Amino acid sequence: MRWSQTLIPTLRETPAEAEILSHQLLLRAGLIRKLAGGLYTFLPLGLRVLRKVEQIVREEMDRAGALEVLMPALQPPEIWQQSGRYETAQDVLFKVRDRAKKEWLLGPTHEEVITTLVAGEISSYRQLPKNFYQIQTKFRDEIRPRFGLMRAKEFIMKDAYSFDTTDEGAQASYQKMYNAYVRIFQRCGLKAVPVEAATGVMGGKFSHEFMVPAETGENEVVYCDTSDYAANLEKATSKIERKHTEAGSADLPIEKFATPGVGTIEALSRAPYQVPADGQIKTLVFMAESKPVIILLRGDHQLNETKLAGVLGTTTFRAATAEEVFAALGAHPGSLGAVGVKQIAVYADAMLRGVRDMTTGANEDGFHLRHVSIERDLQVKEWADLRTVQAGEPCPVCGRPLRIQRAIEVGHVFKLGTKYSQAMGALFLNESGQQHPAVMGCYGIGVTRTMQAVIEQHFDKDGILWPISVAPYAVCVTPLGIDPASPVMQLAEKIYAELTAQGVEALFDDRDERPGVKFKDSELIGIPLRLGVGERSLAKGVVEIKRRGGELITVKPEEAVAKVIELIGQR
Amino acid sequence: MRWSQTLIPTLRETPAEAEILSHQLLLRAGLIRKLAGGLYTFLPLGLRVLRKVEQIVREEMDRAGALEVLMPALQPPEIWQQSGRYETAQDVLFKVRDRAKKEWLLGPTHEEVITTLVAGEISSYRQLPKNFYQIQTKFRDEIRPRFGLMRAKEFIMKDAYSFDTTDEGAQASYQKMYNAYVRIFQRCGLKAVPVEAATGVMGGKFSHEFMVPAETGENEVVYCDTSDYAANLEKATSKIERKHTEAGSADLPIEKFATPGVGTIEALSRAPYQVPADGQIKTLVFMAESKPVIILLRGDHQLNETKLAGVLGTTTFRAATAEEVFAALGAHPGSLGAVGVKQIAVYADAMLRGVRDMTTGANEDGFHLRHVSIERDLQVKEWADLRTVQAGEPCPVCGRPLRIQRAIEVGHVFKLGTKYSQAMGALFLNESGQQHPAVMGCYGIGVTRTMQAVIEQHFDKDGILWPISVAPYAVCVTPLGIDPASPVMQLAEKIYAELTAQGVEALFDDRDERPGVKFKDSELIGIPLRLGVGERSLAKGVVEIKRRGGELITVKPEEAVAKVIELIGQR
Repeated sequence: MRWSQTLIPTLRETPAEAEILSHQLLLRAGLIRKLAGGLYTFLPLGLRVLRKVEQIVREEMDRAGALEVLMPALQPPEIWQQSGRYETAQDVLFKVRDRAKKEWLLGPTHEEVITTLVAGEISSYRQLPKNFYQIQTKFRDEIRPRFGLMRAKEFIMKDAYSFDTTDEGAQASYQKMYNAYVRIFQRCGLKAVPVEAATGVMGGKFSHEFMVPAETGENEVVYCDTSDYAANLEKATSKIERKHTEAGSADLPIEKFATPGVGTIEALSRAPYQVPADGQIKTLVFMAESKPVIILLRGDHQLNETKLAGVLGTTTFRAATAEEVFAALGAHPGSLGAVGVKQIAVYADAMLRGVRDMTTGANEDGFHLRHVSIERDLQVKEWADLRTVQAGEPCPVCGRPLRIQRAIEVGHVFKLGTKYSQAMGALFLNESGQQHPAVMGCYGIGVTRTMQAVIEQHFDKDGILWPISVAPYAVCVTPLGIDPASPVMQLAEKIYAELTAQGVEALFDDRDERPGVKFKDSELIGIPLRLGVGERSLAKGVVEIKRRGGELITVKPEEAVAKVIELIGQR
Repeated sequence: MRWSQTLIPTLRETPAEAEILSHQLLLRAGLIRKLAGGLYTFLPLGLRVLRKVEQIVREEMDRAGALEVLMPALQPPEIWQQSGRYETAQDVLFKVRDRAKKEWLLGPTHEEVITTLVAGEISSYRQLPKNFYQIQTKFRDEIRPRFGLMRAKEFIMKDAYSFDTTDEGAQASYQKMYNAYVRIFQRCGLKAVPVEAATGVMGGKFSHEFMVPAETGENEVVYCDTSDYAANLEKATSKIERKHTEAGSADLPIEKFATPGVGTIEALSRAPYQVPADGQIKTLVFMAESKPVIILLRGDHQLNETKLAGVLGTTTFRAATAEEVFAALGAHPGSLGAVGVKQIAVYADAMLRGVRDMTTGANEDGFHLRHVSIERDLQVKEWADLRTVQAGEPCPVCGRPLRIQRAIEVGHVFKLGTKYSQAMGALFLNESGQQHPAVMGCYGIGVTRTMQAVIEQHFDKDGILWPISVAPYAVCVTPLGIDPASPVMQLAEKIYAELTAQGVEALFDDRDERPGVKFKDSELIGIPLRLGVGERSLAKGVVEIKRRGGELITVKPEEAVAKVIELIGQR
């Protein structure tokens, strides 16, 4: 492609709209342009990269035996009612009304559509297992679209759905996808780490997220340098020790004391009270499906809402308002406790099990209780892991300190079980003629997000450094003068034509610009190789090949094409 | 691909939901499945065909120098207000509301988006011409989705937009697209005829539609067997003679006569009145942008609303209600005329020019006027071609009888001019530093519709006959027994492996089905070649290659792969 014929609107300045570096480079390198918040047009160069990522995904999905299909983006709400997600997914569903005022949904995901299809087309174990995937534009009514392609209203996903006859089969399908994902991200040049992920209300089994470590990521990954432990912060656990064991403190009677104006763990830890945070019980009130529940944590610990959802078996919960709290416990936040509470379900973090001599609110504004012994004084409905792990806590596998790293989620594999197959009637007859729901898995890759994540891991001060596998062009042929009659331009044309004939994707910088501008642009857009043809080097009988972010190689003109092909192969 | 591993749910019965043959075959061959009215899932086989059509379109667009981009489906309504289409396109726009209650549109077309982009990125004649295209999912709020992919709510379009500095440049861009379209449809194996199309209110210049003749088409094409004249019925003209010329009849004074209960052209042509239809003036009242206008046609002629739109310069018009007609003319439909009308604009079809001795309504219920001389008795504001051509009328080029044929519109090329570039500010500086709006063209291909149109032209009683260029697989390898230990299956496996290694797209029918079922299925899904391996033919030292819809060839097993490759090349 001749640079003058395409549109690569590079920018010298950093656009104000872009907060993070990969987003800035997408704009500066002329890969995308914003139409509106969270909506981007892919320009010719950006689309080339996107198609390469798509093709890698497609090849690996095909290799893993998945079947490509294409489902409609518009979906009837009826199937979402059938699966029970019409309410729970409300927040992200774009709704459309047609001329007859009928409602349609713009699908952010396609479990309902594929399961309905399978219900109609598959009826025997002989037709299973099957894994269907599509690479498709998805829509999400994002509360705050940002960071370019990272969190957009419209984006491209690869979504896949597997159907098996047994749990073991489903596990094998899951593992195939896991392995395919490892290959996909490797081929894209991405260091993506599979981490254990929360399964939330879907009900356990298996779930892994593929995370690209990056300071700009919206997720946090907990990992251990020694063992291979890695988990999403929502899922991560640790082996920290409980501070107040049964044997560790006296069994004194409860004592109420005045704490006027003290409303936080922190305030109670200061003089004159001096109760350390890990000697306090934190009492939270939530409304779960409209009923109050109490959550107890050690004073220095933070609630993990994903873990709470798993314990409550619903995502329909929120922190209670001050009024709801007062109605439930007769006091305001700051003086709450669960001592003597009988009518409200109490969920306590496992780290509190057996603790004694703790301080907690008295359910009377301005008062607290000390010498609380949790097993003696409270009625706990359920003990569970409810806390968020903190950096430095011991790894659950090896006990060494855990680290926490921000990361971008680029993929997700999930063992679904029979939730959807049961709801949509995707049943099959087994060898004995009995009907069973298919065991499902679902598997997503954010294709446009992956493209941007590659930039997050491959850039320097001059611009992008595309891995050859996803580079828009492998080489930029750069004549330092463009007079058609000059030996420089004639040689450059000849090399460009030969490269193209050999199937090398070459960009030909035929613009009437200074060498400095051409060099800067080809570095900014990240083409892996630049082949410069200039008068000075030609006088010495050579042309110059520069690896992006690497060394300069000089070769004889007649060896240039072979050298470029050799260098591409090495990448 | 092994048949047992993929999903090709063929149907023996014709599904009740499908009215036309190509739609029936799409379903019966397991290419698509319906999710809801006008919404279809592409199954693995259907998606393969779709991708092949897409790839042909892409290659020819690239060859013509167009640049592929990808624009968002969601569009802000503001740009549609800017272009003035927010109101006029109301009927087909799906509207979406986000969580903040802001409205978005699902774009059926992208003139506004691309022109806004060009306004921001292109500023000099040096950057022009440019032609941007995308292959993208489009949405249309169809009043009545039907015929499968022919008229769907969600479909795939190739849309392209060219930007030039001059009218001549725009004409050249238009011609390039016209030529590319001819090649695209040829490569898809489609007989598609370019016909002149109406430009409507867009204002003339150039427009061609690419039409696939088919009885199930929703369009009508007027064409001449002798000359190369071909036009959309909305645009077509003919050379019919006027029946009542100035010299042809007496100049008698107007005479009113009673016609009780006569309300149609047809009734007036019967006894006792006996006024032939071509001796009557038909008077129609329309409301154009809320004002009444009168349209006059000869009694035996039909109004062409597209031509009317061109004359009125708006598409915002409709037939007046009986009340509006009475308010305008003081009579009801059936007795209307334009004699003596002064306050209402009268548009008359050119075929009425100079006619005398005509009969028309008297604007008094139950009365008509005879001996009306149009130039003497009526005030005509504008004479124009307003009628719809009828079969058998003389060709405007050569005078031979015109024919009318139903057809499917698969492509459309349109010279837009500066309507959008002016509205969206897509201006460029010319060599002299003056600012001008870019001259635009737009070019569409219905990709999913093209896929179905191929079936309309390629089928027989047994199923589809895919042209090799878009066939999902080139050959179906069909062992007549599948016992892995049998020579038949072992040979079939070997041939399948060799074909695949040679890059031939082969389907391997490894199902445990009777030969008859396998043959019927491979015919139904339309694979161009079937390579049968059976015990009986193997005993004679041959395998059988059957061309779909053609002859049976026997070859030695060791020559089978070479023969298949040779036959594919011939197609």
